[in-house]
Amino acid sequence: MKTQVDLDIAHIDKYVSDSRKSYEAQLKELVDIPTVSMDPECKKDIEKAAATAAKFLESIGAKAEIIKTKGNPVVVGHLEQGSQYPTVAIYNHLDVQPADAEEWKTKPFEMTIENGTYRGRGTTDDKGPALTVMYAAKYIKEQNIPVNIKFFWEFEEEIGSPHYEQFLKDHKSKLATNSVVISDTIWVSRERPAIQYGLRGLQGLMIKLKTGVKDVHSGLTGGLARNPIGELAQVISECYDARTGEVKIPGFYDDVRPLSDAELANFLKSGFSVDGFKKAHELHSLRTEDIKDAVQRIWARPTFEVHGIVGGYKGPGVKTIVPHDAEVKISMRLVPDQDPDKVLACVTKFIKEKCPDIEIIKEGTLRPFFSDPDNVFNKAAAESMKFAFGKDPAFNREGGSIGAVVSMHDELKVPIIFMGLSLPEHGYHAINENFDWQQASGGMKMFIKYFSLVSAMTK
Amino acid sequence: MKTQVDLDIAHIDKYVSDSRKSYEAQLKELVDIPTVSMDPECKKDIEKAAATAAKFLESIGAKAEIIKTKGNPVVVGHLEQGSQYPTVAIYNHLDVQPADAEEWKTKPFEMTIENGTYRGRGTTDDKGPALTVMYAAKYIKEQNIPVNIKFFWEFEEEIGSPHYEQFLKDHKSKLATNSVVISDTIWVSRERPAIQYGLRGLQGLMIKLKTGVKDVHSGLTGGLARNPIGELAQVISECYDARTGEVKIPGFYDDVRPLSDAELANFLKSGFSVDGFKKAHELHSLRTEDIKDAVQRIWARPTFEVHGIVGGYKGPGVKTIVPHDAEVKISMRLVPDQDPDKVLACVTKFIKEKCPDIEIIKEGTLRPFFSDPDNVFNKAAAESMKFAFGKDPAFNREGGSIGAVVSMHDELKVPIIFMGLSLPEHGYHAINENFDWQQASGGMKMFIKYFSLVSAMTK
Repeated sequence: MKTQVDLDIAHIDKYVSDSRKSYEAQLKELVDIPTVSMDPECKKDIEKAAATAAKFLESIGAKAEIIKTKGNPVVVGHLEQGSQYPTVAIYNHLDVQPADAEEWKTKPFEMTIENGTYRGRGTTDDKGPALTVMYAAKYIKEQNIPVNIKFFWEFEEEIGSPHYEQFLKDHKSKLATNSVVISDTIWVSRERPAIQYGLRGLQGLMIKLKTGVKDVHSGLTGGLARNPIGELAQVISECYDARTGEVKIPGFYDDVRPLSDAELANFLKSGFSVDGFKKAHELHSLRTEDIKDAVQRIWARPTFEVHGIVGGYKGPGVKTIVPHDAEVKISMRLVPDQDPDKVLACVTKFIKEKCPDIEIIKEGTLRPFFSDPDNVFNKAAAESMKFAFGKDPAFNREGGSIGAVVSMHDELKVPIIFMGLSLPEHGYHAINENFDWQQASGGMKMFIKYFSLVSAMTK
Repeated sequence: MKTQVDLDIAHIDKYVSDSRKSYEAQLKELVDIPTVSMDPECKKDIEKAAATAAKFLESIGAKAEIIKTKGNPVVVGHLEQGSQYPTVAIYNHLDVQPADAEEWKTKPFEMTIENGTYRGRGTTDDKGPALTVMYAAKYIKEQNIPVNIKFFWEFEEEIGSPHYEQFLKDHKSKLATNSVVISDTIWVSRERPAIQYGLRGLQGLMIKLKTGVKDVHSGLTGGLARNPIGELAQVISECYDARTGEVKIPGFYDDVRPLSDAELANFLKSGFSVDGFKKAHELHSLRTEDIKDAVQRIWARPTFEVHGIVGGYKGPGVKTIVPHDAEVKISMRLVPDQDPDKVLACVTKFIKEKCPDIEIIKEGTLRPFFSDPDNVFNKAAAESMKFAFGKDPAFNREGGSIGAVVSMHDELKVPIIFMGLSLPEHGYHAINENFDWQQASGGMKMFIKYFSLVSAMTK
């Protein structure tokens, strides 16, 4: 068996370059299957993609198993070099967000390749990174580097991983590992790799108000009839100040972990810029232009967010009805050490006090996550990133939530490290989502290096 | 020539009773033509109905003319007894709301007759009342009662009468009259006739906020990205208290004409009941259960109403995006003596102060209307209602808006009186719209009496 010291950069470069065609073909095969976990009509596509993914894993010499859950399956791969060597598991997910074809430049579920850019739903989130890891693992296998690699490929990440925790409980021995790498995060900019050591959590909810049986005539009833859209809008504005983002619900901020000076300093060195952020997300204006405030808002502060208000008239112009029901879709991003149950209790109490006949429906819950940025795995990850991309990574936190992370931390009881490859301009959850060969090829080198570093660790 | 003192009740009763068969046949002929002004495919039906209406008017001895406008025609009839006599014009409209056949008990454009109930789209709004007036006029002509009667039969009322004002301007001399009767309003209950002496106006607007190019990921951007739905919800709740309905925009209430004690007393005697209102409109709860407050809210107070909020995520569950744009559809019902332009200026100033980058788009405007409930025409109308229906009418105001009314008031410069025949249970704009012989036969007597009273007035 080789060890990491034997890595031959030219050899790796050639391997990566030789892999491009087959990587692109396999990525297209996966992206072209619409694995939208939110859409019940995609059940068959998810089964098909699971079979395809298992076939891919087997093609590199891994054992692959499609493990059923009460929801979508999880594909588990195992590239075994020997039980005496360390084991590292890599988590990716192969389900995707929905996509409205009419808004896209190209068909979201027909991946296109143009100048090394792969466009299609799921290219960057998270099929592209998943296959990148697989190609690194293939090299490890071919070179006999002494490390065992497990693949945890989920199909319910975009709906909050509702069955993943049970899956972990049910298959603990099969999933045993010394650490887990999550490859589903985003760098701050293409200029500098980034490692996240914290995640925001999430608490979703819907609030509904129904005041009648049908929309009524605003001339005949207006003034006397209640207006559920108006009342819900009022409750929202009592919950938070949308201009500043400040949540006004008593108790909401109680358990927020204060940001240390060192963390803030790292955030400011991460390559984040307010202008870059605006450009990446195509935002015209922000709640603040101050960088110190900005980085804390996205990485270390909780939010209250309104995603949509359903009810009433939606067509062109104005139709003078009084709506009879309305529903507001809300979620809160939570930070360490907020507890979703406690936050939900605060919010429920507050809204019920404001308007007792609002119905509150609990939606998905994800706990926030925090790990030590200085542990050995994060150090190895940093070294691998420098090896592949030529720059020390930034250490920041992730503003999003990955439900599976907290579950894996709880169930597998091993360190969890984030080594993402996506970029802000890749359009996570947005139209024209894309990934690119620069990140895929760099990613392959990064993971080859990381696996070799892990192989040298004591088990 | 006879005068009103010669009216013979038995003779009228016989005339009305003898007219039933032909009234019903003609009503069916009109209702069976789908004159949906909102539907461009009904253009030919509208032409056909205009020809039919003109033919009906000619059959009672009136001159009839189909006057073209840039939109649908107006049928003008003239039953002339002598230029030395007073002239009264009756406004009705022969266009109708759309109807979804699947929701109806019977086909909406095939009128059925069952126990004196006429079911079909347009039976009560407003073809039934139009023909009722015509049969009263026929009696006047047959009896040589000295009054000239003009018929203004519009075909664009249901789309806000966009060409009616120009029609009035273009044909002023032809339309000259000493007063106008609108027969297109609804009693508070079958138990008691009602005369409206005021209408609410309307100012529509849309407010829009666009903070980016596309919806973005609430994990990646939440806290820093602005949320246009949240901000617009906040502006709405600054504009008005949706729970009470109170508008908080400075200057909004400035020109609201105080309701006199006599008016309020009339409202309370109108037959209105809070329970009846809830039942009629299928509302679970209201802003108040107090009848004194309730009647003022719908008839004498302005409103701020949100009809819908477009933007963000509308599907099932919660999709954790930050929306990039949103649009709120708003209208305000205005009361005498509010001026829509002045109100719009207040609202615009207020919203721009709260959030300068909200775009404000002006939508339809209708001025409120107020006439003296004690003028001679309203007195004659009240006497006619008592003559026909055995009860003094209620005097109330109409919560809705009729654009043609203000135009006629401005252009023809004569008093405008409301003598409606529709009932809440007739289903204005609703499924299974109907009218009935009780209201039609009573209406014929009412108009015969009214025309005879007008004939006795000095010109």
